[in-house]
Amino acid sequence: MTALSPSGDPWLLTPGPLTTSPEVKEAARHDYGSRDHRFIDINRRVRERLVDVVGGHDTHVCIPLQGSGTFVVEAMLGSFVPRDGKLLILVNGAYGRRMAKICEVAGRRSVLVETGEDVPNDPRALDRALAGDAGVSHVAAVYCETTSGILNPIEAIARVTARHGRGLLIDAVSAFGALALDTCTVRFDAMAASSNKCLESTPGVGFCIARRGALEHSAGNAHSLSLDLRDQYLAMEKDGQWRFTPPVQAILSLDRALHEFEAEGGTAGRGARYRENLHVLVEGMRRLGFETLLPDAVQAPIIVTFHMPADPRFAFEAFYERLRRRGYVIYPGKLTAAASFRIGCIGRLGVKEMRGALAAVESILDEMGVKSGAPAG
Amino acid sequence: MTALSPSGDPWLLTPGPLTTSPEVKEAARHDYGSRDHRFIDINRRVRERLVDVVGGHDTHVCIPLQGSGTFVVEAMLGSFVPRDGKLLILVNGAYGRRMAKICEVAGRRSVLVETGEDVPNDPRALDRALAGDAGVSHVAAVYCETTSGILNPIEAIARVTARHGRGLLIDAVSAFGALALDTCTVRFDAMAASSNKCLESTPGVGFCIARRGALEHSAGNAHSLSLDLRDQYLAMEKDGQWRFTPPVQAILSLDRALHEFEAEGGTAGRGARYRENLHVLVEGMRRLGFETLLPDAVQAPIIVTFHMPADPRFAFEAFYERLRRRGYVIYPGKLTAAASFRIGCIGRLGVKEMRGALAAVESILDEMGVKSGAPAG
Repeated sequence: MTALSPSGDPWLLTPGPLTTSPEVKEAARHDYGSRDHRFIDINRRVRERLVDVVGGHDTHVCIPLQGSGTFVVEAMLGSFVPRDGKLLILVNGAYGRRMAKICEVAGRRSVLVETGEDVPNDPRALDRALAGDAGVSHVAAVYCETTSGILNPIEAIARVTARHGRGLLIDAVSAFGALALDTCTVRFDAMAASSNKCLESTPGVGFCIARRGALEHSAGNAHSLSLDLRDQYLAMEKDGQWRFTPPVQAILSLDRALHEFEAEGGTAGRGARYRENLHVLVEGMRRLGFETLLPDAVQAPIIVTFHMPADPRFAFEAFYERLRRRGYVIYPGKLTAAASFRIGCIGRLGVKEMRGALAAVESILDEMGVKSGAPAG
Repeated sequence: MTALSPSGDPWLLTPGPLTTSPEVKEAARHDYGSRDHRFIDINRRVRERLVDVVGGHDTHVCIPLQGSGTFVVEAMLGSFVPRDGKLLILVNGAYGRRMAKICEVAGRRSVLVETGEDVPNDPRALDRALAGDAGVSHVAAVYCETTSGILNPIEAIARVTARHGRGLLIDAVSAFGALALDTCTVRFDAMAASSNKCLESTPGVGFCIARRGALEHSAGNAHSLSLDLRDQYLAMEKDGQWRFTPPVQAILSLDRALHEFEAEGGTAGRGARYRENLHVLVEGMRRLGFETLLPDAVQAPIIVTFHMPADPRFAFEAFYERLRRRGYVIYPGKLTAAASFRIGCIGRLGVKEMRGALAAVESILDEMGVKSGAPAG
């Protein structure tokens, strides 16, 4: 039995691109001129609503950018860390390490404070590192590190960073729209996110939400014209237009996706659905013997990492392919050091789809002759 | 009377985003996982067909990139001009000047060889400049400079550049798919283009077509991780996947657009339709008294710049808005030094739409009491 989404595609249980609603895709079936007022109005509305998500109406602005989440993260680091600045990066996975790579290529000094891939960022270690290095101008953290699916303690990180008078830059790509992020409780200079994660739109556009004061001090920082967020902001403020051709259809879809997001109760409502998806998924997989990499206390409701089963009859590629044929696409590779695979619980799907995926997993294990999903040791 | 495209939108007589076919937009109504083989197969097919457009099958590769045409142009300059290299830029408009700005921000030395905005790039001036400056490692040219719509002599530029043993980098964003560009007649290291110009797809993805040999020598050049074309290429060759989330729907649309492009007879067929559009547009506007900025010999069939009419009853903003209400969106601003406005002739439209736009122009002039579109002097 194959379960398919309304667009006739397998359900995407991945960290994005993910399953979007039919209406989100339908909204993109227009050709709008990028300098025409209809598009300019929609673009303005999208920007305002994104700032509202973090309660930053009076203090923050939204700067959309062409490209993927990484493009916005790089634009954020390049635009806010001065060329002679220094970035302290909290690392417990591939996305933290990617920020270090960005600094290397873009010519920014950086220093890492690392924890294991199953251990959240350590605010006390951050405190010590900042106390010992006055040269650090900014701190960067990944809110949900999708390498493992771990939740990092962003409020504590923000408190420590603010106490030391440094600027905080947040990679909120996989978290935005599902995990609480409010300018009243988390002081940040800038955060980066994208359309195709918990906002449940299609990929192609990202955005940075920045504190006005921080943006004002960012002149001359950027290492790239395309990725210069201050330039992008100033141009857009002038006449509402993008500097360079915008991904028009991605913006139209995002506008519709934000409507659905608000109708679901914003971050609280969407986060609740994802937590329920997570709960059903983890409980069901545990019943089949699988074990999660992370303890429940630090598991974000975005994507779950499971240890690879020990049973030699379990072959991941065949498992992936059979699941796909039944209508469920999971993440095909691993990023963790541990032997593992990942299943996402975000996108336009709910308990019904999680249960469907679990039934498919159970039946595939059965076909493979795998008695249990339990890992070695 | 309002003429609308099949999607119910005004026809876009702009340099892009432009009017696309219903099928191009329909193709995007899917959610594909970016690491799933269905998407990987489509992505591979798109890359191969793009290389075929320039006859580069044995010598060149296609590297797609998230973002607009400018993102790819910047990625091309940063990836191919070494950090200690020097770029000679042929400038006769805003897109040439933009390359100079990119060099400034990205830390590449550059030198300009300029002509007026209504004068094509001068290959003899290029010859003299290269003879006099051994430090120039690369030459950059804009094939069609959409500031005015002028056609630059890319074959002659390529011959001079090759004779001096320097690398040629071409901004072919507005030309690709309508103006001839073949690796047999134009030797280049790399060229940049995008989905939403003469290929008649939606915006959100661009691509660079690069000579293998040039790409091999580009290690360590890039000033940006996101815009590093060599890194993007090596990762995609490894497993067919994008390094960072691709604009999935933009690729699905581009795949369909390439099908339509081939069905129309490729560059020859599409270029012929645009030349007919151009002919009808220019002849009709001249009949109403308007004058083109450029002589016909250097006018590319992409976008036409008309002098602003001298009649004081002509108000451009009202003219633009009335045209829009009749179903034709033209470019709302000017980029040239001369007082002018622009009308595009690319996209999923033909002689019928050009005649419709002309009838609308005539009737609006009549309403405004403007006797003639003739400029001052």
